[in-house]
Amino acid sequence: MSEPGLFDGVLAAGRVREVVSDAAWIQAMLDFESSLAAALADVGLIDRAHADHIAGHCRAEFYDPAELARGSVGAGNPAAPLVRALSDRVGGGHVHQGATSQDVLDTAAMIIAANSVDVMLADVRVAAECAARLAEEHIDTVQPGRTLLQQALPVTFGATAAGWLVGLVEAADRVAGLRPAVQLGGASGTLAALGDKGPEVVAALAHRLNLAEPVVPWHTMRFRVAEIAAALGAMCGVLGTIARDITLLAQTEIGEVSEVGPTGTGSSSTMPHKRNPIAAVATLGCATQAPGLVATLLQAGVQEHQRAAGAWHSEWRPLVDLLRTSGSAAYWLRTSLERLGVHPERMRANLLGSGTLTERVTTELTPLVGRQQAHDAVTACCAKAGDLVEALAGDPVVGAHLSRERLRELLNPAEYLGSSREFVQRALRRARQ
Amino acid sequence: MSEPGLFDGVLAAGRVREVVSDAAWIQAMLDFESSLAAALADVGLIDRAHADHIAGHCRAEFYDPAELARGSVGAGNPAAPLVRALSDRVGGGHVHQGATSQDVLDTAAMIIAANSVDVMLADVRVAAECAARLAEEHIDTVQPGRTLLQQALPVTFGATAAGWLVGLVEAADRVAGLRPAVQLGGASGTLAALGDKGPEVVAALAHRLNLAEPVVPWHTMRFRVAEIAAALGAMCGVLGTIARDITLLAQTEIGEVSEVGPTGTGSSSTMPHKRNPIAAVATLGCATQAPGLVATLLQAGVQEHQRAAGAWHSEWRPLVDLLRTSGSAAYWLRTSLERLGVHPERMRANLLGSGTLTERVTTELTPLVGRQQAHDAVTACCAKAGDLVEALAGDPVVGAHLSRERLRELLNPAEYLGSSREFVQRALRRARQ
Amino acid sequence: MSEPGLFDGVLAAGRVREVVSDAAWIQAMLDFESSLAAALADVGLIDRAHADHIAGHCRAEFYDPAELARGSVGAGNPAAPLVRALSDRVGGGHVHQGATSQDVLDTAAMIIAANSVDVMLADVRVAAECAARLAEEHIDTVQPGRTLLQQALPVTFGATAAGWLVGLVEAADRVAGLRPAVQLGGASGTLAALGDKGPEVVAALAHRLNLAEPVVPWHTMRFRVAEIAAALGAMCGVLGTIARDITLLAQTEIGEVSEVGPTGTGSSSTMPHKRNPIAAVATLGCATQAPGLVATLLQAGVQEHQRAAGAWHSEWRPLVDLLRTSGSAAYWLRTSLERLGVHPERMRANLLGSGTLTERVTTELTPLVGRQQAHDAVTACCAKAGDLVEALAGDPVVGAHLSRERLRELLNPAEYLGSSREFVQRALRRARQ
Amino acid sequence: MSEPGLFDGVLAAGRVREVVSDAAWIQAMLDFESSLAAALADVGLIDRAHADHIAGHCRAEFYDPAELARGSVGAGNPAAPLVRALSDRVGGGHVHQGATSQDVLDTAAMIIAANSVDVMLADVRVAAECAARLAEEHIDTVQPGRTLLQQALPVTFGATAAGWLVGLVEAADRVAGLRPAVQLGGASGTLAALGDKGPEVVAALAHRLNLAEPVVPWHTMRFRVAEIAAALGAMCGVLGTIARDITLLAQTEIGEVSEVGPTGTGSSSTMPHKRNPIAAVATLGCATQAPGLVATLLQAGVQEHQRAAGAWHSEWRPLVDLLRTSGSAAYWLRTSLERLGVHPERMRANLLGSGTLTERVTTELTPLVGRQQAHDAVTACCAKAGDLVEALAGDPVVGAHLSRERLRELLNPAEYLGSSREFVQRALRRARQ
Repeated sequence: MSEPGLFDGVLAAGRVREVVSDAAWIQAMLDFESSLAAALADVGLIDRAHADHIAGHCRAEFYDPAELARGSVGAGNPAAPLVRALSDRVGGGHVHQGATSQDVLDTAAMIIAANSVDVMLADVRVAAECAARLAEEHIDTVQPGRTLLQQALPVTFGATAAGWLVGLVEAADRVAGLRPAVQLGGASGTLAALGDKGPEVVAALAHRLNLAEPVVPWHTMRFRVAEIAAALGAMCGVLGTIARDITLLAQTEIGEVSEVGPTGTGSSSTMPHKRNPIAAVATLGCATQAPGLVATLLQAGVQEHQRAAGAWHSEWRPLVDLLRTSGSAAYWLRTSLERLGVHPERMRANLLGSGTLTERVTTELTPLVGRQQAHDAVTACCAKAGDLVEALAGDPVVGAHLSRERLRELLNPAEYLGSSREFVQRALRRARQ
Repeated sequence: MSEPGLFDGVLAAGRVREVVSDAAWIQAMLDFESSLAAALADVGLIDRAHADHIAGHCRAEFYDPAELARGSVGAGNPAAPLVRALSDRVGGGHVHQGATSQDVLDTAAMIIAANSVDVMLADVRVAAECAARLAEEHIDTVQPGRTLLQQALPVTFGATAAGWLVGLVEAADRVAGLRPAVQLGGASGTLAALGDKGPEVVAALAHRLNLAEPVVPWHTMRFRVAEIAAALGAMCGVLGTIARDITLLAQTEIGEVSEVGPTGTGSSSTMPHKRNPIAAVATLGCATQAPGLVATLLQAGVQEHQRAAGAWHSEWRPLVDLLRTSGSAAYWLRTSLERLGVHPERMRANLLGSGTLTERVTTELTPLVGRQQAHDAVTACCAKAGDLVEALAGDPVVGAHLSRERLRELLNPAEYLGSSREFVQRALRRARQ
Repeated sequence: MSEPGLFDGVLAAGRVREVVSDAAWIQAMLDFESSLAAALADVGLIDRAHADHIAGHCRAEFYDPAELARGSVGAGNPAAPLVRALSDRVGGGHVHQGATSQDVLDTAAMIIAANSVDVMLADVRVAAECAARLAEEHIDTVQPGRTLLQQALPVTFGATAAGWLVGLVEAADRVAGLRPAVQLGGASGTLAALGDKGPEVVAALAHRLNLAEPVVPWHTMRFRVAEIAAALGAMCGVLGTIARDITLLAQTEIGEVSEVGPTGTGSSSTMPHKRNPIAAVATLGCATQAPGLVATLLQAGVQEHQRAAGAWHSEWRPLVDLLRTSGSAAYWLRTSLERLGVHPERMRANLLGSGTLTERVTTELTPLVGRQQAHDAVTACCAKAGDLVEALAGDPVVGAHLSRERLRELLNPAEYLGSSREFVQRALRRARQ
Repeated sequence: MSEPGLFDGVLAAGRVREVVSDAAWIQAMLDFESSLAAALADVGLIDRAHADHIAGHCRAEFYDPAELARGSVGAGNPAAPLVRALSDRVGGGHVHQGATSQDVLDTAAMIIAANSVDVMLADVRVAAECAARLAEEHIDTVQPGRTLLQQALPVTFGATAAGWLVGLVEAADRVAGLRPAVQLGGASGTLAALGDKGPEVVAALAHRLNLAEPVVPWHTMRFRVAEIAAALGAMCGVLGTIARDITLLAQTEIGEVSEVGPTGTGSSSTMPHKRNPIAAVATLGCATQAPGLVATLLQAGVQEHQRAAGAWHSEWRPLVDLLRTSGSAAYWLRTSLERLGVHPERMRANLLGSGTLTERVTTELTPLVGRQQAHDAVTACCAKAGDLVEALAGDPVVGAHLSRERLRELLNPAEYLGSSREFVQRALRRARQ
């Protein structure tokens, strides 16, 4: 276990930090080399014993990241010094046979991506279970709907959580559908050094590393990187949306949810009374870093000839950063949802008296006087001071068609929740698929 | 047909310009309204005759974009004044019943996206056919491979084109797999105004518009927008990569390809001798605008409560811009590939004498003296002036194991193309799936 | 006046729309051509009469954007067909003498940028005056401070507005400090066609167009574009921050400010009771589009050789979009601030009883018991139910040092506003500089 | 000295890595705390002895980043546990008095930014000196100009380098003009805990840390961060442009420049003959990461109320990454320029026979036959096979006005370099300012 960096407590939370660490990268590069040797043996290009001998030296702890970093300055990438160090240990040929540095690093990146995805999906799935539980428990908990940050028609908190659930499930499906592929093309992408055995070696290597087998080498066709970036960017939008909802619902003046964490959590260095929804805040801090990183990775997608002069190098850091910040965001959102206390009494109190049910009056009036006239009349009444039922009853258009009693009925929130229950059930069914 | 804007000749080329025009948006919004009315009739909420009456007024030419723009200032979106204008024409209720402005605009955006995708995929597919033809025709055309913009081992132009082909096919598959969904949630996403018929209406509406049916309304869960953005961003990376290759291969000093367009194409206002590969240049000009737009759309993915205060509004322009620039890039790349002249004699001339085949010598030496010693010895020979075969033959390590004759064989490009042919065939098979 | 597009009511509000229109671009390109002719005459390269003759044809209404768009397809930019059309009208030589298409478009872009900046700064300055007035009027209006969306120590609304004011003033200063420069380099940036008069012509041209004179042509050194982009991006952050504050303070449950606009403003198509702070929402919708556009312009900053193959072309649209969205954001924020109603009674009501003054107790205790012990004791009291003064008085640490009376004093908001007044005055002084 | 991470050899080259390390951040935060204590003593709020006592504990080596990271999880930032650890060591009050965590981190970020800027400007200045030397030495070295990657009119390599020089100087001026400011506002930005001494303490603190004094606290007004980001983004565009030029000019087929580095530099793991311009490649790899990071920082510029819920947290990592990648890009470009070998004979060879001087013929013909006719006639001649002078002389329009002798003169590159010399001199004068 490597030690966390200064900002990692907040920005690299959960297991993803280890999974994208330097040690993990070195191991992934070595897994490429040992699997390549094994694949060469599979197709008869080298002896099995030689492959096994190489594999014995493919352990990350034998190599020092700092030394590899220093060794990377001349070649321009850290795979080259690692291959040299491995060759030195092995003491002979066949290491890295047929491969080029980018084969090592691209394949390692795909391994790291696959492992990161596993880790973050585990958190997203727990978050989805939390959302499902909230949706179920609060299927009848009335809550103010809010559009443009103004109260709108009532909803249920169950429906709100159902929206979160569907977002999490669909984002997770998309991420789970990623199929990182092995990279093996050799110096110019022709696998010339493997004679006519190239494709066979690629297939064996892909099989051994549990990665997809590409049609052809993809040294400069980076849609695989773009797809990973895109799926994580979309997922971060979902995580951020839920976290934004939580921070807004937890506002002092609204108080409809709160995070109930361990002692010391969300406290302020200067304000003892504060209880910040820190897990949701950290989710936002992590998730909102994604779009810029995705842009960098997409921009790096334009690469030239057989291998790019710079665009490839510009992918390494943003890919690590994106995996880490996405994984951290997933961890924090799971944490926030696990901590979430829900306060139905505040939801009801916030709703009452806000006059949000006037749409119902408009809808009832529309067939009688036309949509526009209904809308204008009710709008005018809302602008008046005093009791809304009285204002409506006193309006020449409204009062002519609707009694005080009917108006009171129409303005009762619990009776105007539309398909909220059905939406919750649909979301739960979708989640169980 | 609306008139093109000043920059549209270059930046909105092909059919996509019309498909994302104001008129197209108005028609898409009206298609939502007429289909909504029809769906309400399908489930028995309104009369079929009324739905038909509404449909009769749902033609874009009845409405003026400029007037809608002016009418949008108060409500903050152009759907509101369109609904008002449609209601005025219809002269009664049931227009827009149960829906909110965002339902109209989101669904219209999905229609526009679906249409844009159709248009750009048509161009991408023709581009892929061109790439397939090039790959097939040039399966044995030797070309210098280039990595970091330096000559590396030889490839074939067929293999280069096969790489383009796979990129185009996989990017197109991804875009073709998008399933834009209808939006219908009403004021707070509960479809309260439709009683218990909400989900039924959504299903009927989705069916009529040939869009997917979402599990729940997605007013603030924007992964659908993110997915579209991401797929286009990835595709633009592929388009840009191919265009970059073309502009580089067309350099005066390299001259391995050229665009052969209509008279006046690619000419300069001041330099009569110039023949710019203008279609490839325009592809890059369009494709490289994508990453920033994707970032904006991903960033807008964090939206609050039942409808967002600003993030939603920030999506409209970048979505239009992204669809347009992607479609334009696809058009230009198709054009560039259709125009592409290939010059095999320049490829061969560029390759000869560049000494790129030394890797072969290293590979042959490796089992005899070890990888590192082989590498070091050959590197030293490359640095010497004069004939390379002589330098190698004279080296104590190399000369001890390889004859002049064998060295000459090893340095013959046509015999060192590895799996280039096989990769071309794999790419063609993939494209025919 | 051109007609607004469908989304322009919201996304291209205010005067900036006209300033970045196609007609404005054509005029700016023609201003380049007429000023270039005049500059050539200034240095004696052509007759004054000829320059005047050219100038007579340099009026945008003589040229059709759509035709120029169609004419741009071959050359890859709209300056080429304009130069051809102008030459045709003039009927002879000397049009565009010594210049290249990029000279025309880059200079036109700088003119458009300068004009857009003027327009948006006018709005920002009015916004700043509004903020100054609010800061002054509300210098003593107590308001809850909020950090991480939780109530913190009290502030004044005057201090809040003073923060807005400083943001607006400093962002405006930065934008006002931009010095767009003329572009004139000719085909390869050497001004070869002007003999040894090149620099003289550049100086005369810059003088005539009121643009800065660059040291050398900057066809591929795009820091000037980057600087404009950056200043607008920073300004949009300020505009967005203020707008976010307004949308949050205007929340139904908080109600500390509201936008009081013309009838129909901020109303909902379906919810008659709603009063959306639509100008602030539109500010956010516009301002948050900036970062992605800045990224595209920065990315386009890497340009090759004497003129770039694609990167330059990728600048036109994002530059227009950025100028327009920034100008529109400025217009909307000015509008929001002009409409802003402030509700001090809600500020006070929201503050009372939220227990945010406990920091004061901690501060008073710190010299007596040490910072950590003070913090821990007060935190524990805050977590208890019931009256806070009683809880504190009953605590062994707190009660030992502070009387109930002193505790009540310490928890009085109006007496704990620190340097709020002074900060307001500093902001006002800064604004008056 | 901390150890470099795996990718740091390429992506965090030069001195900037240390300057943005965790140890540097901890020291910067401690510098804030010790200077704050000193400032409190300056204005008489605490004893000088106490301040000195605090200062004695403000050394980074006393604190462990990993422990601070673990301690940051509850509070949501690493300043809180550092303050706690410092307080524990000091054993009493007055540590962090009046300040909040964001004061510590924001000020530390400004210190880190200032130090990073110093380091990178040192490299940019050496790079500029190299460019100045190249411009001077090659003021008369003829080189093909290239636009859209096609040969255009000739330039000199001196003029090319002069363009680089101006870019470097102006970008450096912009970065050098940044004035990072101190942050001190306390819990809600009112400095309530400092009574009426707040502004005095801010002034003293700014003075001690050699940072600018802000008008008011800027916890949520982030234009200072935006300005830093923007200046670095613009600088990276300049660095990338020069590096792109170098990678293109170093292409095997062009060979006009090459990097001459230490043994092993730019070599390939598989291709012994390769000599990659690895410093230029690494410059691009670093510089092109900037735009996405700038976008993230600009997007984070929208922050709410007195302190933001997530947007602030999303700044830390991209700021560090941007400083590091910019500094690394500056280091690599300096290195590339220091290594640069220039090959005038290749420049001349590439130019000859490419027919790029036909513009001159057009210019000479224009006053005689009109611009359009001249352009069309010469274009037609260029399209013909065989000797260009003969084609021109044989053309009815050209031949009627220009002799073979004059045509030969016009097509001599060395005589058509316009203001290239003057531009070099202007650039050198600008650099010496």
